[in-house]
Amino acid sequence: MQTPIHQRVALLRHWLTEQGLDAIIIPHEDEFLGEYIPAHNERLLWATGFSGSAGAAVITRDSAAVFVDGRYTVQVRKQAPADLFDYCHLIQQPPMTWAAQTLHKGSKVAVDLRLHSGNWWKAQQAAASALELVAIDSNPIDTLWHDRPAATLSTALLMPLDKVGKSSADKRAELAASLTTSGADAAMITTLDSIAWLLNIRGADVECLPVLLSQAILHHDGSVDFYIDPARLPAEFARHVGERVHVKHPEALEADLRAFSGKRILVDPATANAWTSETLKAAGANVIEAADPCLLAKSAKNAVELAGMKACHVRDGAAVVKFLAWMDREIAAGHRPNEGELSDQLWAFRQQDPSCKDLSFHTISAAGGNAAMCHYRHSDENPGPLVENSVYLVDSGGQYLDGTTDITRTVAVGNASAEVKQAFTLVLKGHISLATARFPAGTTGNQLDALARQHLWAYGFDYDHGTGHGVGHFLNVHEGPARIAKVPNPVALLPGMVFSNEPGYYRADAFGIRIENLEQIVEIETAGDMSVLGFSSLTRAPIDQRLIDVSLMTDADITWLNHYHQLVWDEVSPLLSSADDKAWLQQATAPLTR
Amino acid sequence: MQTPIHQRVALLRHWLTEQGLDAIIIPHEDEFLGEYIPAHNERLLWATGFSGSAGAAVITRDSAAVFVDGRYTVQVRKQAPADLFDYCHLIQQPPMTWAAQTLHKGSKVAVDLRLHSGNWWKAQQAAASALELVAIDSNPIDTLWHDRPAATLSTALLMPLDKVGKSSADKRAELAASLTTSGADAAMITTLDSIAWLLNIRGADVECLPVLLSQAILHHDGSVDFYIDPARLPAEFARHVGERVHVKHPEALEADLRAFSGKRILVDPATANAWTSETLKAAGANVIEAADPCLLAKSAKNAVELAGMKACHVRDGAAVVKFLAWMDREIAAGHRPNEGELSDQLWAFRQQDPSCKDLSFHTISAAGGNAAMCHYRHSDENPGPLVENSVYLVDSGGQYLDGTTDITRTVAVGNASAEVKQAFTLVLKGHISLATARFPAGTTGNQLDALARQHLWAYGFDYDHGTGHGVGHFLNVHEGPARIAKVPNPVALLPGMVFSNEPGYYRADAFGIRIENLEQIVEIETAGDMSVLGFSSLTRAPIDQRLIDVSLMTDADITWLNHYHQLVWDEVSPLLSSADDKAWLQQATAPLTR
Repeated sequence: MQTPIHQRVALLRHWLTEQGLDAIIIPHEDEFLGEYIPAHNERLLWATGFSGSAGAAVITRDSAAVFVDGRYTVQVRKQAPADLFDYCHLIQQPPMTWAAQTLHKGSKVAVDLRLHSGNWWKAQQAAASALELVAIDSNPIDTLWHDRPAATLSTALLMPLDKVGKSSADKRAELAASLTTSGADAAMITTLDSIAWLLNIRGADVECLPVLLSQAILHHDGSVDFYIDPARLPAEFARHVGERVHVKHPEALEADLRAFSGKRILVDPATANAWTSETLKAAGANVIEAADPCLLAKSAKNAVELAGMKACHVRDGAAVVKFLAWMDREIAAGHRPNEGELSDQLWAFRQQDPSCKDLSFHTISAAGGNAAMCHYRHSDENPGPLVENSVYLVDSGGQYLDGTTDITRTVAVGNASAEVKQAFTLVLKGHISLATARFPAGTTGNQLDALARQHLWAYGFDYDHGTGHGVGHFLNVHEGPARIAKVPNPVALLPGMVFSNEPGYYRADAFGIRIENLEQIVEIETAGDMSVLGFSSLTRAPIDQRLIDVSLMTDADITWLNHYHQLVWDEVSPLLSSADDKAWLQQATAPLTR
Repeated sequence: MQTPIHQRVALLRHWLTEQGLDAIIIPHEDEFLGEYIPAHNERLLWATGFSGSAGAAVITRDSAAVFVDGRYTVQVRKQAPADLFDYCHLIQQPPMTWAAQTLHKGSKVAVDLRLHSGNWWKAQQAAASALELVAIDSNPIDTLWHDRPAATLSTALLMPLDKVGKSSADKRAELAASLTTSGADAAMITTLDSIAWLLNIRGADVECLPVLLSQAILHHDGSVDFYIDPARLPAEFARHVGERVHVKHPEALEADLRAFSGKRILVDPATANAWTSETLKAAGANVIEAADPCLLAKSAKNAVELAGMKACHVRDGAAVVKFLAWMDREIAAGHRPNEGELSDQLWAFRQQDPSCKDLSFHTISAAGGNAAMCHYRHSDENPGPLVENSVYLVDSGGQYLDGTTDITRTVAVGNASAEVKQAFTLVLKGHISLATARFPAGTTGNQLDALARQHLWAYGFDYDHGTGHGVGHFLNVHEGPARIAKVPNPVALLPGMVFSNEPGYYRADAFGIRIENLEQIVEIETAGDMSVLGFSSLTRAPIDQRLIDVSLMTDADITWLNHYHQLVWDEVSPLLSSADDKAWLQQATAPLTR
């Protein structure tokens, strides 16, 4: 059957022949290399039909393959036509490996350097020695895609000082001082949330991520060149950011990069695209590979940002409580809303707060065995039904003007089995062990990760994802540079960072459990040799006590849970106007006893 | 005052002038790069008077410096004459940095490549770009040292199969197969305990480490060239190791290395000296940098080795129990043996077992504030007295024919303060948390390290050393490649590995606490998704209950302790002939109650 995908692949093959090329690699990423990309940059979707959030394709003159990770092996087979594409594992058989196996030696493979990181480009040049990689000036899809959606180009939202706590001028001065110390003339700021943080602005160009598609260069004198259509900036922008922010048309970037000839400029090879560093190098600039200087500064939030995070979590908690209370009432009334209806209802409760601007990521609303897929996304056409005598998992968050939330709750539907309760309780004990951890300055997330897994491990269980990711302030819900995971990460946890604490357990085709709060890193005085760091939970919503096997809980576990539930009651109940919701929260936060 | 050190430095300066050189670097290490070196290779001691176990010196024509780490800052000032030497920190101001600051640009620095690792040599060539490093063929100290002690050249002890569990031929065949897979023609085996393990032999050339000073090359066909004086091997050696072990004079090594021209040979740049790899490279060999292939195989012990480890720990425990009982009786009788008498008495009890061949390291016998120095070594001339109403720390071990032990106990002298009891109990809780950990295959030591520190951290305490090192089987008491520490180490813990579990706490000038058992990694079946790994304590000696603050112990902590003490009683009491010792052990292992 001929589909639009067949026509598009044929157009790309025609282009290959015209250009004298043998293949083209099409990644999911756009030039900003972020996790979320706008619809008009979904080139992989256009070329293959595959709509997942990560992947790539290679199209040669007579063959093609699409590459996805374990999350998408089922989905890709439904979306990318099997008569056109081989299906490959993105990590086990990456695109360039497949291309080297499929193509003759010396074949020419087109690469759009804007869509790949500097690190990727370095690795490929070594890996693909049998192929000739050809950097293309313009992407053929941008020409061939006739019904390409228009870019959503929002007007910049200027964040007031009482929301962000530090002026852009002060942030720039601090970073500029460290640039000067390191002997650099400038730093490329290419990560969209870094730009938004540095200039104290937000946008709505991308779903779930309140940023503006733009680029920036920070100079050692604290001035910034900001590459964006000036029409997108409100009149007050100049006063808002202070002196020495020069707004330039995006087209001016290339010439400005060339002007770095002979100068030293920091580029983050993990987050900046390869086109940027290659353009700089070709112009004779001295490219210093180093982390985006905004990353660490942004992740350790100031007191004003933290106050906003705390406040929005109470309001977000009220929305979650209304949802959980409503869901329990629906079930008690014999109704069985499906995954889509549940997700929509939760979003409706969040939207009652006018400061809630967006989801912080696509809601995971998963019933029964669907929750065993930890990145499950329900089908809009055919959402799964609630499963009786099992658990329902909902992982969701909101983008509020004063902060970003991310919470997972797993709730009983009918009577859960002893197996489910055992797993839920072990996950909860891991969550509590991490939440109550104390540790010295300098500790990294991978040193703490086992605290969250130890109780599952003792019973022969584990979960195949990290324990905690950083969370931005009305920015990216997945924020670096530190994280809490098995894999070593050299960045120490700092006061003011915010992390998720989300151990889980997944039994294939049966059920999935995850308990996630966000936690702020706080400094704690001791009577010992040093103060230590610890976590302070921001999230405010009850943890389902119907799923707890009390016999597995220590006294200290119960004390933590009861204290946490008291906080939830104290802070969230004043926001509930419905007596039913209040009554529901009261019983949900009642002290657990043996 | 002129001392022999002044004369020796003068001789070295004369040699520098003669050779047209500007400086010489003298490391503590000998050509085998091990932790323990024989007396005849103590070149740093000869040149400086400094007797510590790590350090270096640089002597120029008109200046000199000695470099030590934090353990030795006091000692070095007593030993190396101040009118000759600057005192520098080995890590913060390493030898080549000092040399580059002290000498004119282009100065010639003599380096004996036999005494440095390949990794060190690579790093220096980059670090010392302003100096000319000159590799010397022979070390001037070897010529100038007229009263150099003769080397202790012991006769090889052939280890029977019922002690080591696997024949040398089988070990060689397995390693050779993996060499072939990796496409290498041979591997340098330069670590002394690797050679001893591979050939199932032991020796007494070095204090505390039962090895023979020798070198070996393992070929891909399973044959070995073994470089050692044949006179040191008993007649049965050939039958013992099986076919294809070719014994060669040490002088033959250089020519044999040259014969690798055009061949591929593995060299471990962390453990093999730079002379080896430079000689190979100069001959045109293809040097592949990779870990010594014996390291991982040796560290995961077989069932016979583990049975020996278990058995020797019971006998070692009996010696420790006799010592602790004797010490308590001495104290009760009003005697106060000093650190030296205590150390000697413990060694005397160990030597009652004829299979105990040596200490496994120099005993740390530390009273009162001395124990706050975690690598304390008491003075033979002026050992410290026992301190009343404090604690005494003894860290010691034996080399037995069937295994190696390493145990630390901290014991009450009089009435310990509440502070001491709090710290002791927090250390004990960390020890128990690690001892009871369960974790999946693939877990590395740094993932578990926080389990041992968490209780100290919660009170604002920590310890500045690793939590656990590997331990050999009648071999090195500090054995790689895995370890349990804050710093990431990529090597996963495997069943059959043996680690120390030794959290501690040190309050400067006041007291020191450490509780150390050895633990074997065992596989544990579960009712969950997978079997897991865990620790099984090998050490058998009571933990001083007089120092426990029971209010800090959970029920699970108390259960562990009582179970452990029951094991100690059951296994050690049959080895005690004295009624007094038995009675002492009975009260020391009586169940702890609230």
